[in-house]
Order: sequence, then structure tokens, then C-alpha cells
Amino acid sequence: MQRYFIDQPFEGNNEVRLDGDIFHHISRVMRMKINDEFYIVFSDEKAGIAKIVDISNEEIIASIVKWEDTNKELPVKVAIVSGLPKGDKLELIIQKGTELGAYQFVPFIADRSIVKWDSKKEKKKVERWQKIALEAAEQAHRQHMPKVYAPCPFKHLLDISQSFDHKLVAFEESAKLGETSNFVKAINNFNHGDSVLIVFGPEGGLSIEEVQQMEESGFQICGLGPRILRTETAPLYALSAISYQLELMR
Amino acid sequence: MQRYFIDQPFEGNNEVRLDGDIFHHISRVMRMKINDEFYIVFSDEKAGIAKIVDISNEEIIASIVKWEDTNKELPVKVAIVSGLPKGDKLELIIQKGTELGAYQFVPFIADRSIVKWDSKKEKKKVERWQKIALEAAEQAHRQHMPKVYAPCPFKHLLDISQSFDHKLVAFEESAKLGETSNFVKAINNFNHGDSVLIVFGPEGGLSIEEVQQMEESGFQICGLGPRILRTETAPLYALSAISYQLELMR
Repeated sequence: MQRYFIDQPFEGNNEVRLDGDIFHHISRVMRMKINDEFYIVFSDEKAGIAKIVDISNEEIIASIVKWEDTNKELPVKVAIVSGLPKGDKLELIIQKGTELGAYQFVPFIADRSIVKWDSKKEKKKVERWQKIALEAAEQAHRQHMPKVYAPCPFKHLLDISQSFDHKLVAFEESAKLGETSNFVKAINNFNHGDSVLIVFGPEGGLSIEEVQQMEESGFQICGLGPRILRTETAPLYALSAISYQLELMR
Repeated sequence: MQRYFIDQPFEGNNEVRLDGDIFHHISRVMRMKINDEFYIVFSDEKAGIAKIVDISNEEIIASIVKWEDTNKELPVKVAIVSGLPKGDKLELIIQKGTELGAYQFVPFIADRSIVKWDSKKEKKKVERWQKIALEAAEQAHRQHMPKVYAPCPFKHLLDISQSFDHKLVAFEESAKLGETSNFVKAINNFNHGDSVLIVFGPEGGLSIEEVQQMEESGFQICGLGPRILRTETAPLYALSAISYQLELMR
């Protein structure tokens, strides 16, 4: 069944008016008719099945017939912070990371980021990333649509990190040295509803200076096992491990 | 440092002769010279750093200067068995699955596989997949190069599954019903060196008949959490969880 995120919270009214893009998709692309059903997700993460009760040329009126009672969200809010990688790798991180439960995506300009960030194209690029997150959230049956931010400088990243309950950095060198338990220890300290920020380097990895500054800002350095993971694979490992520990093992 | 898998076991001789593709890559592409070093991995999974002692027009002679002593391989041998998906999704599964430690890849023609498998193009396709596995294994610093098989019929899959120590099937419906603990129980039963086969459906999922037949053949049905994972994402979740449990948590 189709799933749509709408831009408003549930306001106590079981009848919802839908226009614009969602109206277009439901009536023109999916060609739904009266009595057809779809999932609707409000911006406050309430989700349910809606049935179409009326269709005009401009809008649909749908009525919630059943609320979704299973929680689809990770018990912690994970921000995936990626050193801006080359090509379309960030798109893969956003698509797969959304399926795996990430709460938000914060790219940053790392010392070893090769891409020259073109701020003129920023708006379009971020819109595209946000659309990828939206589609993946619909497909994965999420209740939260992850927000994707425009790439920020490293300094700014250190500032925003201060508001998170847990700050981790995945560092390949630490993995090479056989460090295996920090990530487990960190996850075991997560409490329900905590915010978690995890930093991943770009293709060339993080610079020593970046890692040092993060350590000084209270980040925990974690290895993710003995194999060298690509920049777009490491976040998927981290999210899967967090889900396994907090959703399957509990 | 570059890493090369060679097609022969270590035979007790610290000097190795390299010709063909590897010779070409080392001398022509990388333009290495005498005394330059690279990683070499023998077919029996012994790996070490080799130093070039001689270069001719056709071959390189290199001498092992240091053996790699950390194990890079998952403690269990995981076969990722994927219902043949559309487009290049299997390439993503092979690339990322190799980084995450898969032992081998076995595609199969599932009831809901949409792709018509063209057996005339099989040889080329499998060669391409194998090359992706090789490159990912080099990049991830593996000691084992995963083998990729040609797609097999479902019946054949049931036959080969009998030789595995553990047989699992990831089934979305089971995830929807809130089943969360089978996968954890299964991993907790893994012993060092065990062979594990995990089946994943194509885009449309596995058919009820396929799941029933697997159950009758002794497969355990596992959910992978509350979110719906795409066909190419589920194997990455499974491998990450196995690594987390067996490599980081131990």
C-alpha cells in the first residue's frame, strides 16, 4: 500500500484534505478512486490507513480508518554525519540509511573531501537528497522522515555536536589497531529517546587533526570491525548494529 | 597499499613470481619499482606484505617481508542467497556484502524474480560479478575472496542448502508480525567456522510456497526489524549484525 508523509501534524480531525503533489500522485499517478486506501503519516509521526471519501479536481478528502500501532522507529535518534564524499555516494547513504532508521543526515566538508562544494547548486542538491530520504522513508514504512542538511564546515559540526547525548566517530585507524569494544560500550549506554551523532570520514578518511579535535570535544572513537569499509558502507554497518542491539536483542 | 589476490596457495617459498593481469597492474598501472611493496593474498588465505625484488618485461619477482597476523574474516562462512533482483542491485549486494564479510554469493531464480535470466549472457555476467567481488575484497583488506555463483533454480538451492550448518530465511511478513528474536537466537547458535546460508527475496519478496518449502527443509524464518528493507539492503543488515555480534561484542 502507498505511503505518504504530509507536512502537518494530526490535529484531532479524522478527515484530511490533501492537495498539491500528494493529490497529484494519488489521483493521477496511482489513479486511486473513492474507497481506495493508503498510509498517511503526519509530521508528528502519527501514522494510519486513510480511505478516500471524496475526490475533486484539486483535492482529495480521506478519512483515517485505522491507526498504525507498531513503532517503526529506532529507539534512539541517530544523526549520520558524513564527510562529503564523491559522486552519488551520499545518495546511497541517505537512501539506505533511511531504510535502516537514521533520524537525520548532516554532511560536512572534511579535510579530505575531494568534492568542491558549489554553494550555488546547494539548494537543488539538498532538495534532491531530501526527496531520496522521503521516498526511502515511504518505502521502508517509517513514521519519521529524516531531514537532510546542507553540508556544513567542520567547525560548525563541533558546535552542533554539543547538543547530542552521545557523540561517536568511526575511525578506520582505530579498527586497524583491533579496537572492537568501544562501539558496543557506547550502544549499551544508549537510553530510549537519546540523540546520537556518528561521524564518518570521506573516501580518504578523517584527518588526524579532525579526530583530535573531536576527541577534545568529547567524542568516543569507535572501530567497526577488522575489514576496511567504504565511506558509504560504514554508516549502514553502524545503523544495522544499533538496530540489532536495540530492536532485535532486547 | 595495493592488495592482490593470487590464484595459488602459499607453497612455502617466500619468493613469488607474478605475471599476467597482476603483473600488468603492478608494473604498468601502478608503475611500481624495485623495493616497492604491496599486499599479496594466497588462495589459502595467507596474506602478507611483498617487496619487489626484480621486474622484467613479463613478470615480477616479489619477496614476502611480513605476514599479516590479524584475521580479517568473519568467524562464520556466510552465503548470501539472493532472489535475482532487477538492474544492478546484485552488484551492490556483492560489493557491499564483500566489504561486510560474506563468504560467497548464490543468486537464485525466485518465483517473483522479474528479470528473465539470459543463459547466453551468463558467463559474462558472472565474470563481471566476480570482478566486483575481487575489487571489493582487495579494498576491504579481506583474506578470502568470495566466490559468486551463476543463478540457480530454487530446487537446486534447496539441495545445496543441506550441506550448511545453519539455514536462515529473511522474511518480511515475519518482520511485520513483530518477530524479532529468531535472528538473535540463530546467531547465538553459531560456532566458529560454521557455514551459514541466508536467503533473501527479490523485490516482490518470497512467495508463500518458497517460504513453506524452506521451512520444510529446516530453514529458520527471521525478521530483521520493524522497517521494510529493500532486497539489496537486507543482506547488508544481516552481515553487519553478524559482525557486530561475533566480532565486536565477543
